[in-house]
Amino acid sequence: MRILCIGAGGVGGAAAGIVARRSFFEVFVVADYDLARAESAVKSVPPELRQRFEAVALDASNKGAVADAIRRHRITHVLNAVDPRFVMPIFEGTAEAGATYLDMAMSLSAPHPEMPYQLPGVKLGDLQFERSGEWEAAGRLALVGMGVEPGLSDVFAAYAQEFLFSRIDELAVRDGANLVVEGYDFAPSFSIWTTIEECLNPPVVYSSEHGWTTTEPFSDPELFDFPEGIGQVECVNVEHEEVVLMPRWIEAKAVNFKYGLGNEFIDVLRVLHKLGLDSTEPVNVKGSLVSPRDVVAACLPDPATLGPKIKGKTCAGVLVRGNDKEGRPRSTYLYHVVDNAWTMENYGSQCVVWQTAINPIIALELLAGGTWTGAGVLGPEAFPSKPFLDLMAAPEPEGYGSPWRIREEDRA
Amino acid sequence: MRILCIGAGGVGGAAAGIVARRSFFEVFVVADYDLARAESAVKSVPPELRQRFEAVALDASNKGAVADAIRRHRITHVLNAVDPRFVMPIFEGTAEAGATYLDMAMSLSAPHPEMPYQLPGVKLGDLQFERSGEWEAAGRLALVGMGVEPGLSDVFAAYAQEFLFSRIDELAVRDGANLVVEGYDFAPSFSIWTTIEECLNPPVVYSSEHGWTTTEPFSDPELFDFPEGIGQVECVNVEHEEVVLMPRWIEAKAVNFKYGLGNEFIDVLRVLHKLGLDSTEPVNVKGSLVSPRDVVAACLPDPATLGPKIKGKTCAGVLVRGNDKEGRPRSTYLYHVVDNAWTMENYGSQCVVWQTAINPIIALELLAGGTWTGAGVLGPEAFPSKPFLDLMAAPEPEGYGSPWRIREEDRA
Repeated sequence: MRILCIGAGGVGGAAAGIVARRSFFEVFVVADYDLARAESAVKSVPPELRQRFEAVALDASNKGAVADAIRRHRITHVLNAVDPRFVMPIFEGTAEAGATYLDMAMSLSAPHPEMPYQLPGVKLGDLQFERSGEWEAAGRLALVGMGVEPGLSDVFAAYAQEFLFSRIDELAVRDGANLVVEGYDFAPSFSIWTTIEECLNPPVVYSSEHGWTTTEPFSDPELFDFPEGIGQVECVNVEHEEVVLMPRWIEAKAVNFKYGLGNEFIDVLRVLHKLGLDSTEPVNVKGSLVSPRDVVAACLPDPATLGPKIKGKTCAGVLVRGNDKEGRPRSTYLYHVVDNAWTMENYGSQCVVWQTAINPIIALELLAGGTWTGAGVLGPEAFPSKPFLDLMAAPEPEGYGSPWRIREEDRA
Repeated sequence: MRILCIGAGGVGGAAAGIVARRSFFEVFVVADYDLARAESAVKSVPPELRQRFEAVALDASNKGAVADAIRRHRITHVLNAVDPRFVMPIFEGTAEAGATYLDMAMSLSAPHPEMPYQLPGVKLGDLQFERSGEWEAAGRLALVGMGVEPGLSDVFAAYAQEFLFSRIDELAVRDGANLVVEGYDFAPSFSIWTTIEECLNPPVVYSSEHGWTTTEPFSDPELFDFPEGIGQVECVNVEHEEVVLMPRWIEAKAVNFKYGLGNEFIDVLRVLHKLGLDSTEPVNVKGSLVSPRDVVAACLPDPATLGPKIKGKTCAGVLVRGNDKEGRPRSTYLYHVVDNAWTMENYGSQCVVWQTAINPIIALELLAGGTWTGAGVLGPEAFPSKPFLDLMAAPEPEGYGSPWRIREEDRA
């Protein structure tokens, strides 16, 4: 397996550090628009593990350049680790060059032109799924939404369907953290560009009765009690891939995603939107054309550099409500908690990007070993969940040493 | 009197419309960095009143250029109507060329390097007051802080001292409005650059016991009940010139300024500050160097263009607490309310910039007639208040037809 990882930001850098300890691949090429950043990601790998790595410059917005890089380095698997603006050129360049494709965020949505807060327009991933036939006909796989959320959350849902539930009433993805960044008034631990994109788009929700519908941003707030000391965090509906992925493979009456933004972050996003500072349309600032959202990102610290200053844990999981295999009511939260102190000590990566990056590496290892196989555009739900969760939880060196857990809910 | 008005933004444009109806001056030159904007301000004057107006290009940051313009047009009085970054070059250029100077905002403050929220560093206007001796020796006048707030509020305080009170315990300047701008989620009716500057600097307060001290931004919130239907608005301490002006001429135990920002605007300013978007230091956004605060301004509509979409009234005033001339406790709010519908109908200007612009024009008329005279750097308190208030309130054409009022407070 020869892997091209496109993007050497927080997630790409963490992926390099994780994959370096595994033996399943032959070469891991890190590509970035900024060659220095790709080189820096490679240099972050310990010297004794670095021989299978290479850094190259690549413009992810150019599908021809993506295809050229795949051919030049005889790549078999492309891991897309840049922000979702670049999904389509990478997806298409990979198809052209005939490699397997993996991403952690899917092609962008577009709101419904007349009823943006009631009906979806173009949904997340629609542009990819409409090409599924071509991929299937070519016998090639595009594994989409294979980060932590989407990704691990979808694996949890598949596991719940196979092993825990006979009927699923609700798949409620809940993502929250208690991270604080010392020395900053405000320092998001993940790309602000992506966070604005997902939080200010109309959230999509699914029900078997109405299919996919949308709501106003930040709708339906609830306090969710996250495990392992994180505690209660204000969660709101956010547009997320799980809602469009899970119903394609899992029978559930309802699917929704709520992100534990907390009141402070919600307030920040509301104000950015109110002032138009979330916009990606360039404005003229004394002769310079700049996108306000890029200015916001430039004013904030780079999340990839914050690791040593972060304290706390982040949690990804799915609350499943329904009936167990014996038909009794059951409500179960399947989750994965990562402590920043642990990821910093063991990988030198902050926990949020590490938790995102570990999942596609596990998936690549399962593909390399033939445990996961498939053709077409497929979500994580389309593959056996148990081998994935077992490999993640098993201690190193066989596994990745990162356990997941189940919490039975009292309210069931 | 030959007037040079520097700045053709909202206030400069409104000043042209107001002065056009008066006979006390010979020429009114409107200068702006952008000649087209100066020409547009002149064109906004009705054609039959336009013959005494001229538009010129001028860089307000260049004191030599300011002095040259004064000499070239044989200017006797300079009205500074640009944002307070340009106070010092205009002030110095005017001194060099030997004209009378008026402004509506004073030279900028600098926070105390160690204790910014306890002690003032460089106060508003300090850079101007330290030059007062030169102006006085030259027999020339710099009338500073002569807008509405500062300006009219200071005239009210002088009036209260002379005619209403024997002892003043507190001069509490309170500024509030109930303006809404149709069609916008968020559209400040005044320069966001200046609003950020004054609201995020440490607010200054005065007491006869401790002199000038500072607090945290947005400190000491109170609901103030504004008159004429505006109603209760959340007001907080804001750095403002009145607090440094009034104690120089009026004996008061305490002086403070609270601005009726309302909770929504306070929240917006807090978020801008938290994210560093209030900063004037350029950041690098994909190769372009831009100041985040300029980006915020570029994302918002130009306040000068909002007039037709605004509904509501704005109020400026001073609540004076102390003893009346007979020694009995008295608490009196002296105020000036302007309705946007009225300013739009009568002047084509929105109410906030109109209320700012009318005051220096009245002052210029009093200087032209010799009712106000003086030398040195002086605030509005240094001049007789009654002729000012009478001229403002008297119906046109003798006066400006804009009444002020007194409300006795029940709590006294």
